[in-house]
Amino acid sequence: MTKLSINSDRLWNSIHESAQFGDSGNGGICRLALDEHDKAVRDWFRASCEQEGCDVFIDELGSMFAVRKGRNASEPYVGIGSHLDTQPTGGRFDGILGVCAGLEVIRAFNDARIETDRSICVVNWTNEEGSRFQPGMMASGVFAGSRSLDETLASLDRSGVSVAEALERINYRGRVAVGSIPLGCFLELHIEQGPYLEAEGVVIGVVEGAYGLSWYNGRITGTSAHAGATPMTLRRDAFAGLCDLALGLERIACRIGTSAVATIGEVTIASQSRNTIPGDVSFTIDARIKDAETTSILEAALSSVITDIKHRRGVEISLENVLSKPAARFDTELVDLAAASAELKGYSSRRMLSGGGHDACHLSSIIPTAMIFVPCRDGISHNEVEFAEKDHCLAGASVLLQMVTTLAGT
Amino acid sequence: MTKLSINSDRLWNSIHESAQFGDSGNGGICRLALDEHDKAVRDWFRASCEQEGCDVFIDELGSMFAVRKGRNASEPYVGIGSHLDTQPTGGRFDGILGVCAGLEVIRAFNDARIETDRSICVVNWTNEEGSRFQPGMMASGVFAGSRSLDETLASLDRSGVSVAEALERINYRGRVAVGSIPLGCFLELHIEQGPYLEAEGVVIGVVEGAYGLSWYNGRITGTSAHAGATPMTLRRDAFAGLCDLALGLERIACRIGTSAVATIGEVTIASQSRNTIPGDVSFTIDARIKDAETTSILEAALSSVITDIKHRRGVEISLENVLSKPAARFDTELVDLAAASAELKGYSSRRMLSGGGHDACHLSSIIPTAMIFVPCRDGISHNEVEFAEKDHCLAGASVLLQMVTTLAGT
Repeated sequence: MTKLSINSDRLWNSIHESAQFGDSGNGGICRLALDEHDKAVRDWFRASCEQEGCDVFIDELGSMFAVRKGRNASEPYVGIGSHLDTQPTGGRFDGILGVCAGLEVIRAFNDARIETDRSICVVNWTNEEGSRFQPGMMASGVFAGSRSLDETLASLDRSGVSVAEALERINYRGRVAVGSIPLGCFLELHIEQGPYLEAEGVVIGVVEGAYGLSWYNGRITGTSAHAGATPMTLRRDAFAGLCDLALGLERIACRIGTSAVATIGEVTIASQSRNTIPGDVSFTIDARIKDAETTSILEAALSSVITDIKHRRGVEISLENVLSKPAARFDTELVDLAAASAELKGYSSRRMLSGGGHDACHLSSIIPTAMIFVPCRDGISHNEVEFAEKDHCLAGASVLLQMVTTLAGT
Repeated sequence: MTKLSINSDRLWNSIHESAQFGDSGNGGICRLALDEHDKAVRDWFRASCEQEGCDVFIDELGSMFAVRKGRNASEPYVGIGSHLDTQPTGGRFDGILGVCAGLEVIRAFNDARIETDRSICVVNWTNEEGSRFQPGMMASGVFAGSRSLDETLASLDRSGVSVAEALERINYRGRVAVGSIPLGCFLELHIEQGPYLEAEGVVIGVVEGAYGLSWYNGRITGTSAHAGATPMTLRRDAFAGLCDLALGLERIACRIGTSAVATIGEVTIASQSRNTIPGDVSFTIDARIKDAETTSILEAALSSVITDIKHRRGVEISLENVLSKPAARFDTELVDLAAASAELKGYSSRRMLSGGGHDACHLSSIIPTAMIFVPCRDGISHNEVEFAEKDHCLAGASVLLQMVTTLAGT
């Protein structure tokens, strides 16, 4: 009889098998939520789970729940998983590791012919990335009751397609009510997407919670004018105003230290032309902040920078908060279990906070939740060169399997 | 018999009649070179000129030459005109004033039944703006021999349509060889597109030449990474690098004073996403500089700024000069004639340099050339609110008529 353990080769193969769907040709993946490649990887995931004897349920937002029945099927499930959608130039591990490790956990129990008390449910959450439909962590947010289903279904991509239409196009608008799958807890294995574990040579990150997240949409309006005939001193250059704002924001985040990061990720100059001074610039800010107090400090400092730019450049600046998620704190008992499981398996670990938001952050508001991180090369993610060592994937999945064994009961 | 003079109402009407083609609905015009609206305004211009008895010739690049024959048809023509294409959010006067004033000069001679010695030729140069096909001042550049016809015909817009295809689509690929129309001199009336005339209450700008023009394409590559999980201190943010560069360039241009202006008009973050640190940013620089020495000063200072950014941020920066036009000097006798004509007509005038490039700059390298400026409101151009007073249009056209009368001989 096979011993209960992760098959490292099989896990590695399923990660790379899934990478064929939306393969960018440069080592990365472009698989935006609910696009044709997302459909293909979903079909693959469903077939793989069904082959392992799971029932696969699809909810109204397309989230997928593969259930391996336990002896006591009426008990809430032990939920594990992550997401299969990627950034436009995403990598092969972000989200995918967590789902493939979930599948591997199921396969490990099947190989060992071990029945658990509780059912185990591997989840693929719809639209974690938020690259096509905003905001990200969309389906887990609705599952946790922090966002309305109807508004979410009506959310549009840039070409005007709604989430509802996109779900129907790929035939993933399920009948199961969002939030009705009885998850009793949730565990998410993920690459760190930051540099700390690698820098310290630690294999397992025991994640105690996540930074808060604030998204802003900004716009600066000045005066569009002829680039050749307008003296520097008489310009109201909206893009120059944005440069002041971006560098000011960067200084503020650096001053706050490790408790905050801030990023301007999208910039659009309206009707841009190389010989016209930009008169209208839109941009986004993504800020991740440790706690509410630090959020206030950052917002006050940014407001002061903005007042100065408006005054100095004669431009108008508006900034709208479009998403605000407080910092998440994971379940103490599950966090302790993650640390103990890492130790039991002989892996080094450290406790840490997540800089990125994850589906687990939403789940933590309704059920006991924890996350496990493994290192990724150079801390790089949301990039085609994103990479995690095979042994680190094995380590993370092994800690996950150990936790599931404890929580599901054998 | 009608006295030889500009009909102010008729000039004003033709400016606004032409504005129906590509009307943006916000008071401005979007009439990109060789698009359907450009075709419509060309048809209107041709019909208007033919109605005045002109022969209209179209060259291989679609430039239009409306000739009112003089007594001595073998003498080189007195050329006048400008362009009818606009910026994406352009105004009703940039270029259009010069062409409509040319038409009005023909009408004035016809009304007064005055035959001239030399023929008068009103020109509409194809693609002055360079918004759709690059570079701008395209057809006048080929006419003056400073650019190759074949390369120009092969130039592509963003959707991959070539100049040759675009000309054929709108049926404006003429048979007349570029450069073969015998212009003996060229006069261009234009709005100033800058603030000086209005600020000083002067009606006529006697333009002695134009600033040199340098266009650069730039690219900054850093590392695209997760916006939440990457500490500020470990980022290689390409957009932050661009902000440093833009503000550095602005400081350099301000320090040089009135001899230079520089603009970053187009910015594109590759695969932009609000939760990804930009790893790849492309941008353009438009610099207008009084002389070659000042160009060297600006380029050296910019190079030093770039070296600093590369070192400090660990990003790569490339900058390619894609267009370089030396400063233009107009014909001394024609410039003097412009000043004398303004005085004769009783208008205040000042001598000045043009900040913008114009078709006249190309023409000045092969034939005696001059320009006349009139004020525009707040110095604003390349903008839907661009506006010139009716009386100032009259003044400019009247000076033009006076110059043509002298040059063509009656």
